[in-house]
Amino acid sequence: MGHDYNTLDYAVADGILTLTLNRPEQMNAFTVEMANELVAAFDRASEDDAVRAIVVTGAGKAFCAGMDLSKPGNVFGLDESQRPTLDDMRTRLEDPAIHDGVRDTGGRVTLAIYRCKKPVIGAINGAAVGIGATMTLAMDVRLASEKARIGFVFGKIGIVPEACSSWFLPRIVGISQALEWVLSADILSADEARAGGLVKAVVAPDQLLPEAYKLARKFVEHRSPVAVALARQMLYRNSAQAHPIEAHRVDSLAMFYTSLGDGKEGVRSFLEKRAPDYASRASTDLPPFYADWAREPG
Amino acid sequence: MGHDYNTLDYAVADGILTLTLNRPEQMNAFTVEMANELVAAFDRASEDDAVRAIVVTGAGKAFCAGMDLSKPGNVFGLDESQRPTLDDMRTRLEDPAIHDGVRDTGGRVTLAIYRCKKPVIGAINGAAVGIGATMTLAMDVRLASEKARIGFVFGKIGIVPEACSSWFLPRIVGISQALEWVLSADILSADEARAGGLVKAVVAPDQLLPEAYKLARKFVEHRSPVAVALARQMLYRNSAQAHPIEAHRVDSLAMFYTSLGDGKEGVRSFLEKRAPDYASRASTDLPPFYADWAREPG
Amino acid sequence: MGHDYNTLDYAVADGILTLTLNRPEQMNAFTVEMANELVAAFDRASEDDAVRAIVVTGAGKAFCAGMDLSKPGNVFGLDESQRPTLDDMRTRLEDPAIHDGVRDTGGRVTLAIYRCKKPVIGAINGAAVGIGATMTLAMDVRLASEKARIGFVFGKIGIVPEACSSWFLPRIVGISQALEWVLSADILSADEARAGGLVKAVVAPDQLLPEAYKLARKFVEHRSPVAVALARQMLYRNSAQAHPIEAHRVDSLAMFYTSLGDGKEGVRSFLEKRAPDYASRASTDLPPFYADWAREPG
Repeated sequence: MGHDYNTLDYAVADGILTLTLNRPEQMNAFTVEMANELVAAFDRASEDDAVRAIVVTGAGKAFCAGMDLSKPGNVFGLDESQRPTLDDMRTRLEDPAIHDGVRDTGGRVTLAIYRCKKPVIGAINGAAVGIGATMTLAMDVRLASEKARIGFVFGKIGIVPEACSSWFLPRIVGISQALEWVLSADILSADEARAGGLVKAVVAPDQLLPEAYKLARKFVEHRSPVAVALARQMLYRNSAQAHPIEAHRVDSLAMFYTSLGDGKEGVRSFLEKRAPDYASRASTDLPPFYADWAREPG
Repeated sequence: MGHDYNTLDYAVADGILTLTLNRPEQMNAFTVEMANELVAAFDRASEDDAVRAIVVTGAGKAFCAGMDLSKPGNVFGLDESQRPTLDDMRTRLEDPAIHDGVRDTGGRVTLAIYRCKKPVIGAINGAAVGIGATMTLAMDVRLASEKARIGFVFGKIGIVPEACSSWFLPRIVGISQALEWVLSADILSADEARAGGLVKAVVAPDQLLPEAYKLARKFVEHRSPVAVALARQMLYRNSAQAHPIEAHRVDSLAMFYTSLGDGKEGVRSFLEKRAPDYASRASTDLPPFYADWAREPG
Repeated sequence: MGHDYNTLDYAVADGILTLTLNRPEQMNAFTVEMANELVAAFDRASEDDAVRAIVVTGAGKAFCAGMDLSKPGNVFGLDESQRPTLDDMRTRLEDPAIHDGVRDTGGRVTLAIYRCKKPVIGAINGAAVGIGATMTLAMDVRLASEKARIGFVFGKIGIVPEACSSWFLPRIVGISQALEWVLSADILSADEARAGGLVKAVVAPDQLLPEAYKLARKFVEHRSPVAVALARQMLYRNSAQAHPIEAHRVDSLAMFYTSLGDGKEGVRSFLEKRAPDYASRASTDLPPFYADWAREPG
């Protein structure tokens, strides 16, 4: 497949991919096309060894103003005759008619971020509402411009939060803050979002990308791509298990594997007081247990 | 059944139920009768379409001073001959002798709040200790009067926290804060509770109910009763799953269902810049998958 | 077995065990021997009724400067011929060659803390990096000296976080803070650790142990050893279940059991306005369901 995007800008420099939601005339409103392009872009970056971290931002004034309601097909899709039943939704999520039509498109994006082998930083430059807010929840860290406004506004139009936000949001801010924000559907200022633990920091608009790159560089420089990918997945997946012994089993495997790999160079460079020079690639060098461990439950 | 309560006041106005613990002479101390009445009241409100949100407070000076220890039957119940064994507790929780006697009564109340289709706000007006503290943990948001005092005091009398508080409290304030508060059995001031993330805000005593109603109105006005009920349950239930794909499956079902229901009016009213007029009822219009999805695991 | 430790100091006074990492010349760097001694010490304290709470600190300037890299066997262990395969790690974790060699030693320590019947307070007196940081995550509460420096520095040497830290850290500080700290591998000041919710308080160096003992006494004085052990395990284990009904079942059993045990004296002493005098022992008096409920999943 080619890598031309209609709704995104995909630019790699110094190991950092800047992924820009790029429909500024429409305040980067989300469409099925944007969803498909975001999934493709995250999956591509996940396997591209030239990409070591990802910064997501919006072109123009907005980050993402939510689902593009001028195209109702984005939400409801399909005419009556093609419309699946609820039961279809349960049993045929991978069927193209459902996958590309009425399966939650935001969730396809956040699952792609979740499984990504690279850290993802949200640089929220302006309005981030609806899917514009929920897509950021799967990102590792969120930074906000003073101009950011964030809203889980689904309740205002009679629908429910999506994009796996009910899974991510309580993990970031706790269940009560999540309930309050979703039930109130309030538009939060950047400072309110920070006070509630949703964003790491609020910065001046012209400092947003510099701060995001500064953080991204920390995640990248002198880092083992395999160790970074494993650590990110371990935090998400191990923390969701019922007993820490499940984490211990994965820790033992992952520590054993990395200790024989980049960890050797890591320790050597540390003892020799020099920068490490790692050989591993996230595209090819994840351990044999990774595929099984990280598989989506059926 | 009738709706006379001996221990509660149940008053609905403008879509908001105010549920008042009403044994002020006993500082609203908790009894088995109060437990039964609370379960009945939450289940009734859950199915009453006239109730769109619930505010819980206490009559008089206290919110709830804990289990009424003047009636030891509330804790230990039953004389020796009737007393079940531990093994009975494991296998016969629904048996009336156990259900009404020694099954944790606080937990029956918090499970009723958990499954409630309406948002619940705790308006903590004074002392909230023991079950008076733990019952509030299943409420979506807690507001505290400056006079509130909150204590997970079980350790002071040689017993354990109950009412599913070990499930709820770490989800609200994190595991370490939960451990510290439970192990210390400290009585927290309202400000300490807010600093620890337990209450959203501390207000003057005469502002407590007005603030609670203000928040409740946000949860109610221009809201779809079906979307509110689903969103609340999705946050609790999806976040407790091991993988976000489980949330994605439910999101896809719930978004599909609401988009064909109140979401149509929601989007239309949004585009037409007018208030929405929703037709759904939480009592009858939850989606077919709801019952299965929300069933208590056996 | 005897109770001589080469790497630890084990001192009990007034019901409180002070466990001191005691290799000050090596900044208390962690070795396989220290891991084995820590597991033995926590398991011993768990069963020793003279120990009611545990304070962990470091001798000299550091808390624990991480894995002792001067002995690479601590990380990699074993020469080529003895080295297990990844598949061995999955199926033979209890095999001595793996258990004592390459199974994650930090995780053996944090699992021992997790299952301990006594509350554990980390008194972080200085540098706590790598396993020096992650071992504290399984402790109930962390206090930090102003001189503490805490770092999840694994990424700097090409390896992954261990010691079940991917299970514990998100439970304490939320998933985003956990991801940021692990991916950045930053060294945190005591104030940064407090701002992020990792430590309860920052105190002057000479106040660290007094504050830790003050907190420990709260967990001990007038407390039922059985109720304390149960409450601690209930918070960890119940909160990790998918539905609060699982907590309710355990609550009902534990409340029933303690109400017939120390709870009787607890309520009596409360009503008589005197200090309670509990008879239970954590070593022998945990309820019959405890062993099954608390068993490590196989």
